[in-house]
Amino acid sequence: MINTEKAELKDCEFKKPSSTPTEHAAPNSATTEQKQRLKMKMSKIKHKIAIISGKGGVGKSTVTVNLAAAFALEGHTDKVGVLDADIHGPCVPKMLGLKGHKLIGGPDGTLFPVTGKQGIKVVSMDFLLPNDEAPVIWRGPLKMRIIQQFLADITWGDLDFLFIDLPPGTGDEPLSVMQLIPDIDGVVIVTMPSEVSQAVVKKAITFAKQLGVPVIGIIENMSGFVCPECGAKLDIFKTGGGKRVAEDLSVPYLGKIPIDPAICVDSDSGTPFVAENRTSPTVKAFAEIVTKIKQFLKVT
Amino acid sequence: MINTEKAELKDCEFKKPSSTPTEHAAPNSATTEQKQRLKMKMSKIKHKIAIISGKGGVGKSTVTVNLAAAFALEGHTDKVGVLDADIHGPCVPKMLGLKGHKLIGGPDGTLFPVTGKQGIKVVSMDFLLPNDEAPVIWRGPLKMRIIQQFLADITWGDLDFLFIDLPPGTGDEPLSVMQLIPDIDGVVIVTMPSEVSQAVVKKAITFAKQLGVPVIGIIENMSGFVCPECGAKLDIFKTGGGKRVAEDLSVPYLGKIPIDPAICVDSDSGTPFVAENRTSPTVKAFAEIVTKIKQFLKVT
Repeated sequence: MINTEKAELKDCEFKKPSSTPTEHAAPNSATTEQKQRLKMKMSKIKHKIAIISGKGGVGKSTVTVNLAAAFALEGHTDKVGVLDADIHGPCVPKMLGLKGHKLIGGPDGTLFPVTGKQGIKVVSMDFLLPNDEAPVIWRGPLKMRIIQQFLADITWGDLDFLFIDLPPGTGDEPLSVMQLIPDIDGVVIVTMPSEVSQAVVKKAITFAKQLGVPVIGIIENMSGFVCPECGAKLDIFKTGGGKRVAEDLSVPYLGKIPIDPAICVDSDSGTPFVAENRTSPTVKAFAEIVTKIKQFLKVT
Repeated sequence: MINTEKAELKDCEFKKPSSTPTEHAAPNSATTEQKQRLKMKMSKIKHKIAIISGKGGVGKSTVTVNLAAAFALEGHTDKVGVLDADIHGPCVPKMLGLKGHKLIGGPDGTLFPVTGKQGIKVVSMDFLLPNDEAPVIWRGPLKMRIIQQFLADITWGDLDFLFIDLPPGTGDEPLSVMQLIPDIDGVVIVTMPSEVSQAVVKKAITFAKQLGVPVIGIIENMSGFVCPECGAKLDIFKTGGGKRVAEDLSVPYLGKIPIDPAICVDSDSGTPFVAENRTSPTVKAFAEIVTKIKQFLKVT
C-alpha cells in the first residue's frame, strides 16, 4: 500500500481524509453536517458546469480555463470559480499562472480558493502538493473524499459560475462530482476529431444520460490546422468527428476549435488564450461556443 | 450508486467482481488460489512492460500497439501480448483492427485473448462491452478486480512480451498493475513536449521510483510537425520537453516521435503505423526507440 498522505497534505491545513470508506458508499459516508455544508456552499453558486471527456489529452483543461476567463471577462469579474478535479494530473493552476500558490486558511479553520486574474477563484490538488514531482498515489475512495472536501469545506463565496475540470473517463472523480452536486446545470463534453476519440466520447455522453445530467453540448477540439508558413489547411487529427457524434447521439454540437500553436504557448505561460489573441480564428470559434453555452444557461 | 455490471458483463463468461473490497486492500483480498494462478500465468511471460504517462492523450495507446507490432514483426510472431488496462476508455482493439471481437471461453471456464495480426494477443475491457456507447461507471475497487482477473484468469500462454497500456495518472489502475506484477521489467513513460505535460510526467516518474519499478525511459510523442505542403518545420506542441524531463530526473531518454497525420489515419483504420509506412521519419524514429528498449531488456 502506498500512503503519500503525509507528503501531500503536510503543507496545508486541509483535513486529510480520515476514514476508509467502502466502494460506492463514499457519498453517503459524509456526515450529515458535511452534507449540509456542501449543500449550503453549492447553493451560493448560480451555475455549476462540469467539463468531461472520454479520452484524455483532448484539451479539457484548456477549454475549462478559457470558459472561465471568457465568462469572467464578459461581466462576471470576481464571480467565476474553477474546481480542478483532476487529482492525479492537475493542470489548471499552471494554465492560469497560479503555480506555487497554496490554499489560504482563515482563522476559523475555513479555506479559501486561490484568486487569479479577473478574480477567477481556483481550487486544485496542485495547491496541496510540495512540488511538481509529487504524485498522488491514491485509489478511488480517497479521491472521492478530497473532492467532497473541495466542495464542502472551501469558502467559494457567491459565484455566478463554477466550472469543474474532470479527469477523463467515467470513474471515481466524475461519478463523485455528479453525485455530490445533484443540481449541476450540465456537462460540456470535449473531444478530438479522430474516430478513436469519438468512440470513447460516446461513453461520456451515455454516462451523463445515465446519471440524468443534461448535456450542454460537444466541443470538437484540435480540429484542423492552418500552416502559418504557407496557409495550407491540414487535418492533423482529421475533422468533423465531434459533429457526427453529436448527431448520432442527439446531443447539441457547440462548435470546433482549430489547432493553434499559440494556445500551447499561452497555456504554458499561464494565460487563457481568450484573454490574449483576440483576433485569431481560434478565439472567434471559442466566442461562438461561449454564446451557445450562455443560451443554454439563459444568462448574458 | 451506479451498477452497470450486468450490462457490461452479460455478453461473456467472465466472472464479475463479486465482493466489495475496501480501499487499498484489493491486492491482498484475492484468494490464495487466485494469487497462485496470477503468479503462474505471469511466470510464462518473459518480459512485462507497462506504458504509462502523467497526462492523457499523449499517445500511450499508439505507442503500446506499435511497440507490440514492432516486436511481433521482428521475430516474435505469436509471442506478444497487449493488456489494455484502460477500463473507461479502451482504445487498443480499434487501433489493432479488433473492434467487435469478444474474449473466447474454453471448455473448462478459461478465457482466451483475441488474436490479431502477427499473432498479437489482446485483452481489453472493450471485448466485454455490448457497444461503443456503453460506459464503465466503476469506482476504483471494481477496476482493480477486473485487472486482477485479466492477469490471473486469461490464458495468455507462453509469451516473450506483454505490453500493458495504462490509463493516465497514478491511481487505481497503474497502482494495481504494479502491485500485481512485482517482477515487471519496467515502465515506458510517454509525454508530449509541452511544459504542462512535462509537469505531470514528473509525477509518473516519481510514481515508478516510489514503487521501485525501473524506468525504461521517456518517449516524447507529437514532437514537431512538418507541413506536407511546404515542408515547414512547425512545433505545434513545442519540442524538447521529454529530453529535459529525462535529464532533470536522471532517467533514460528513448527519443521523440514527430506528429504524422498518417498515424491518426492508421490508428483509426486499425493498423499499427510501424507495419505500414516503413519509410517515414516517424517509423525511423520509432525503430530507434525499439532498439533502445531491446537493449534495456537485453533481447534481440
